[in-house]
Amino acid sequence: MGQFEAGTYDCIVIGAGHAGAEAALAAANRGVDTLLLTMNLDMIAFMPCNPSLGGPAKGIVVREIDALGGAMGKIIDRSHIQMRMLNTGKGPAVRALRAQADKVIYQSEMKKLIETTDNLTLRQAVVDELIVEDDEVKGIVTHIGAIYRAKTVIITTGTFLRGEIVIGDLRYSSGPNNQMPSVKLAESLENLGFDVVRFKTGTPPRLNSKTIDYSKTEIQPGDDVPRAFSYETTEYIMDQLPCWLTYTTPLTHQLINDNLHLAPMYSGMIKGRGPSYCPSIEDKIVRFADKGRHQVFLEPEGRNTNEVYVQGLSTSLPEHVQRQLVASVPGLENAEIMRAGYAIEYDAIVPTQLWPTLETKKIKNLYTAGQINGTSGYEEAAAQGLMAGINAASRVLGKEEVILGRDEAYIGVLIDDLVTKGTLEPYRLLTSRAEYRLLLRHDNADMRLTELGYEIGLIRPQRYAQFTEKKRQIQEELERLAQVTVKPTEEVQAVLAEANSTPIKEPLKAIDLLKRPEVMYAHIEKIAPADTPVDEQVAEQIEIFTKYEGYIKKSLQQVDKMKKLENKIIPENIDYDAVANIAHEARAILKEVRPRSIAQASRIPGVNPADISILLIYIEQGRIAKVSNE
Amino acid sequence: MGQFEAGTYDCIVIGAGHAGAEAALAAANRGVDTLLLTMNLDMIAFMPCNPSLGGPAKGIVVREIDALGGAMGKIIDRSHIQMRMLNTGKGPAVRALRAQADKVIYQSEMKKLIETTDNLTLRQAVVDELIVEDDEVKGIVTHIGAIYRAKTVIITTGTFLRGEIVIGDLRYSSGPNNQMPSVKLAESLENLGFDVVRFKTGTPPRLNSKTIDYSKTEIQPGDDVPRAFSYETTEYIMDQLPCWLTYTTPLTHQLINDNLHLAPMYSGMIKGRGPSYCPSIEDKIVRFADKGRHQVFLEPEGRNTNEVYVQGLSTSLPEHVQRQLVASVPGLENAEIMRAGYAIEYDAIVPTQLWPTLETKKIKNLYTAGQINGTSGYEEAAAQGLMAGINAASRVLGKEEVILGRDEAYIGVLIDDLVTKGTLEPYRLLTSRAEYRLLLRHDNADMRLTELGYEIGLIRPQRYAQFTEKKRQIQEELERLAQVTVKPTEEVQAVLAEANSTPIKEPLKAIDLLKRPEVMYAHIEKIAPADTPVDEQVAEQIEIFTKYEGYIKKSLQQVDKMKKLENKIIPENIDYDAVANIAHEARAILKEVRPRSIAQASRIPGVNPADISILLIYIEQGRIAKVSNE
Ligand SMILES: Cc1cc2nc3c(=O)[nH]c(=O)nc-3n(C[C@H](O)[C@H](O)[C@H](O)COP(=O)(O)OP(=O)(O)OC[C@H]3O[C@@H](n4cnc5c(N)ncnc54)[C@H](O)[C@@H]3O)c2cc1C
Ligand SMILES: Cc1cc2nc3c(=O)[nH]c(=O)nc-3n(C[C@H](O)[C@H](O)[C@H](O)COP(=O)(O)OP(=O)(O)OC[C@H]3O[C@@H](n4cnc5c(N)ncnc54)[C@H](O)[C@@H]3O)c2cc1C
Repeated sequence: MGQFEAGTYDCIVIGAGHAGAEAALAAANRGVDTLLLTMNLDMIAFMPCNPSLGGPAKGIVVREIDALGGAMGKIIDRSHIQMRMLNTGKGPAVRALRAQADKVIYQSEMKKLIETTDNLTLRQAVVDELIVEDDEVKGIVTHIGAIYRAKTVIITTGTFLRGEIVIGDLRYSSGPNNQMPSVKLAESLENLGFDVVRFKTGTPPRLNSKTIDYSKTEIQPGDDVPRAFSYETTEYIMDQLPCWLTYTTPLTHQLINDNLHLAPMYSGMIKGRGPSYCPSIEDKIVRFADKGRHQVFLEPEGRNTNEVYVQGLSTSLPEHVQRQLVASVPGLENAEIMRAGYAIEYDAIVPTQLWPTLETKKIKNLYTAGQINGTSGYEEAAAQGLMAGINAASRVLGKEEVILGRDEAYIGVLIDDLVTKGTLEPYRLLTSRAEYRLLLRHDNADMRLTELGYEIGLIRPQRYAQFTEKKRQIQEELERLAQVTVKPTEEVQAVLAEANSTPIKEPLKAIDLLKRPEVMYAHIEKIAPADTPVDEQVAEQIEIFTKYEGYIKKSLQQVDKMKKLENKIIPENIDYDAVANIAHEARAILKEVRPRSIAQASRIPGVNPADISILLIYIEQGRIAKVSNE
Repeated sequence: MGQFEAGTYDCIVIGAGHAGAEAALAAANRGVDTLLLTMNLDMIAFMPCNPSLGGPAKGIVVREIDALGGAMGKIIDRSHIQMRMLNTGKGPAVRALRAQADKVIYQSEMKKLIETTDNLTLRQAVVDELIVEDDEVKGIVTHIGAIYRAKTVIITTGTFLRGEIVIGDLRYSSGPNNQMPSVKLAESLENLGFDVVRFKTGTPPRLNSKTIDYSKTEIQPGDDVPRAFSYETTEYIMDQLPCWLTYTTPLTHQLINDNLHLAPMYSGMIKGRGPSYCPSIEDKIVRFADKGRHQVFLEPEGRNTNEVYVQGLSTSLPEHVQRQLVASVPGLENAEIMRAGYAIEYDAIVPTQLWPTLETKKIKNLYTAGQINGTSGYEEAAAQGLMAGINAASRVLGKEEVILGRDEAYIGVLIDDLVTKGTLEPYRLLTSRAEYRLLLRHDNADMRLTELGYEIGLIRPQRYAQFTEKKRQIQEELERLAQVTVKPTEEVQAVLAEANSTPIKEPLKAIDLLKRPEVMYAHIEKIAPADTPVDEQVAEQIEIFTKYEGYIKKSLQQVDKMKKLENKIIPENIDYDAVANIAHEARAILKEVRPRSIAQASRIPGVNPADISILLIYIEQGRIAKVSNE
């Protein structure tokens, strides 16, 4: 095959899924010359599974992506059919926004953004091979022989690497949704010596709306209040479509039990590990055998389509069983399946082979992001894409690498978990994975990350000015509330009564009154108004900060403690064989993960506190200096 | 692999491209239970090449499809970005509407229509095999083992059958646009004994709009007058996007000459025949070596995308040559290629194996339509799909087959050409293929076909009522104009002067005045107004009918003559070996084509007038009766 030199870029991103889109946008927006190559331009940011973004932890990630200048939040704000704030009745740490996307519009909005971004070239091409010299990536080769050279390469190929669809007793080579799989690139990665695992993920059938009897289901409308993921969004989509809720029945459960021998996960057809937090319906019935029924949400895939996603019925049972399953659910008795559910098995890279920048340890300047790193989910993919893009750009620009702490962002938790602990199944972000949940809130993603986003050039000056103004107002208002004294006047007692709060007996600082759970900023505003009223978002921060001050401070103390360990850097050239007395297992795994700090080392499964102490002493004694720096 | 019974339908359509969409809609709308299976639900009615419909002949086909109750016209009316009437300055026979589509919206509108149509089930599936018993099709098997049974099956798989992409010296198995090819179904057809040819078609590169310098090109705006393909459209898209015109340069031509050894068509890489009326730029440069430059139109692929189609630069030269070619065109010096051009080779069925209903002669109840029958173009595909759908439904309903005459519709010309003459290259409809061009006009598609559309149940009563009312008005007004006398009054002479027409000397029938080329219906209206004024469309018919009456009558006489031969039916069970004296070559080809009438026989290449005379005598002598009717 004739090859030819097709161009030289600072950064090449392979794949324009959710990870690739963010990676390419971030790199380009940081000013480096970026090429985004993807198999099919008509499938950019395609949602092969649930056309929905957000929810617990994931929704906060979308806000974090936005605070760092990423795209996902802005795009979903322009393309959703429904938006809801979950857990509004609960504490601020678990509040989360969730949106149903119009799948087609999401794609076309993301594509348009990519097409119109400076420093970014979007091109349809299948990448077959990496060019690597002296353990450094130098470029890639496409299936039509185009050689592109680059300083950095980011691979974001999702579930395509040696993809195989599994359904019933059938298995065939395929990418998701009958697209082409990516076999040669998978071979290229294997030849480079990467450790690869087989993972699987699955999707439920899609139904034709006209064949659903919604009268047997419960309506799930969107919120009336307009909301947005992005801090930049100013126009809201007010016309929302409802989703619908129904349930599995005893018949559903029996059908599954009767056909379990046909389920690839149980028949041995699938060897790859699936995500236990996104179980198939067959998994749910087996694992929660005592549960009488499971929720089934019916979610439209867009405004201009009849396709309905059946959340809760993910399955790889044979199609004829899927039909019976569907028909066993109230409202779906006559529902027509438009696409059958299926599972897909694919190659993922063992993520402990990555630095926290998502650069591979083996090949310099090569980054991987998204499902290829063993995760599952659009938001997880986008978050990694963003960070890989930022860091590849840093490398090109000679700037500092950007690694988010576990106390700074869910994105930090995600990446630290991956590169430190690896994962035995497709990794999904959950609130329970974060130790500082009260710090990593939906409402304060901007407070946590806008500064950084601005520093790295992804937040524009105008937005940054708005942000600093918001910060100033919060600070000023908090100070004012700490000074203003509220006296037990009749007016004050009346407002308190209205808030169902007991009257005050003595004069009191406004801030102390706000600490009462039932007293809101709106009440304080009546009693002790500011000269210039603050907006809702400022008020929200003040409320949360005041009410949860104790908890937040405690969290911050823990963070400080942890930071001390994070600051105990393990030099890159440490020779673990030279560290006496570390347990054998710990030594092996430390050599693999190569943690960057004592804190990271302490999070590695299989590394015990005793090993950490030994390591700590070894480092503090300055022994590393003796290790030759080759 | 486990197979299972997945359902029984009246009609199964394989593939939801332009042919499949019309076929399924037509069958379902005629009331037969229809299943439409397609590889990828996100690619319905996808336009892999020029996102444009209409133009000479093809535009008239879209109107004909609409007059018969098909979908294409309605969908493009809802999804275009630009609409233009071509040749407005010329005679009515060559006027034609042309629209640029928003590719994504076209797809989603067609998908929605299919999803919401009664009697129609749309499902994602790859069909691998036909079930045939005793030379009758009984159903199909999908790649996951679903067996669907049906009374009729229509195959509309476009360029997917054993598709191979060719670009430079490279060839690889693929459907269009990096989709999966369809190999097993191709094998199934071959095993059934179908004669198959390899054809090829090609597409130009797509460019990113932001990298084009439009100041070096000429703007091509849409029409200001709102227009529509469908007679049912009442809402018009007023916001149109312009296209742009530029030209190849001597450098372009030199580049091609220098690289001709790399062009698959010239290096011998491509053996399949391409459409000579849609030549690649390399073909144009070679075939029209003396032409100094060729037009290059820049056509946006939609409202919400930067992709621009480069009409005129279709090529399968290697990508690095494509880049130089593009850069050699004014305005495109720095243009970025988003998709490279390529050629695709695929299996097509030799169309003389089909009856004029598009049923295959070999396998009863099996129909084929679209690119698989050796044509090229969306409109050609849609037209065949419509007719195959209508005829499959006729078969199921036990109703009459529907075959359009060459005098009735371009669709009739298209199908008659295919099944009678076959084709040595991808067949494209051209005005020159029609012998009764003056009858097959853009403006009278409804007059020609609405009646039939209504009879077969595809035109709804309300529309039919509007149509009969229009017909009545035309008739009435023509009669009135033949009676009303115009006298040489001052007022009349003034109107004639205004029309640049000579004054009349004697009283004259209004209709005779209208025969003057420069006198329009609008003038007559001033001189001799009708009681109730007629609308524009009625006036247009009256004008054309009056002005071209002589030519139209002559055409109709020719039709009458031809009809006599069309009515000389050749019995299906004729034994050509028993017809003495027919030339050897003619006998062989008559046995293959099995024409249905003497007229059709006379159009077969290789059958000479002498053979026709012998055949005619043979039939008129009633010899056929002697042939056993097995
Ligand atoms: C069947 C299925 C079920 C799923 N179920 C769930 C679920 O229940 N919950 C959940 O959270 N997530 C689910 N997901 C996962 C979710 O879709 C992914 O996590 C997310 O899309 C990953 O994003 P990504 O960017 O890593 O990869 P993708 O979005 O898959 O994008 C990969 C991109 O790379 C391109 N590409 C691949 N190979 C090449 C190559 N060689 N050259 C050029 N381009 C290439 C592809 O064309 C594609 O554009 C599911 C995915 C699938 C397929
Ligand atoms: C590269 C290229 C260049 C072209 N250039 C031109 C041009 O210059 N001018 C022009 O007029 N026309 C051109 N065309 C042709 C035009 O695109 C086609 O004529 C038109 O799309 C044909 O319509 P169709 O319905 O026959 O097939 P398609 O539109 O191709 O639809 C076929 C459908 O069948 C489905 N399918 C295939 N196999 C299976 C299976 N086994 N099971 C289920 N579904 C299946 C596919 O997914 C697809 O939906 C070009 C096409 C290509 C690909």
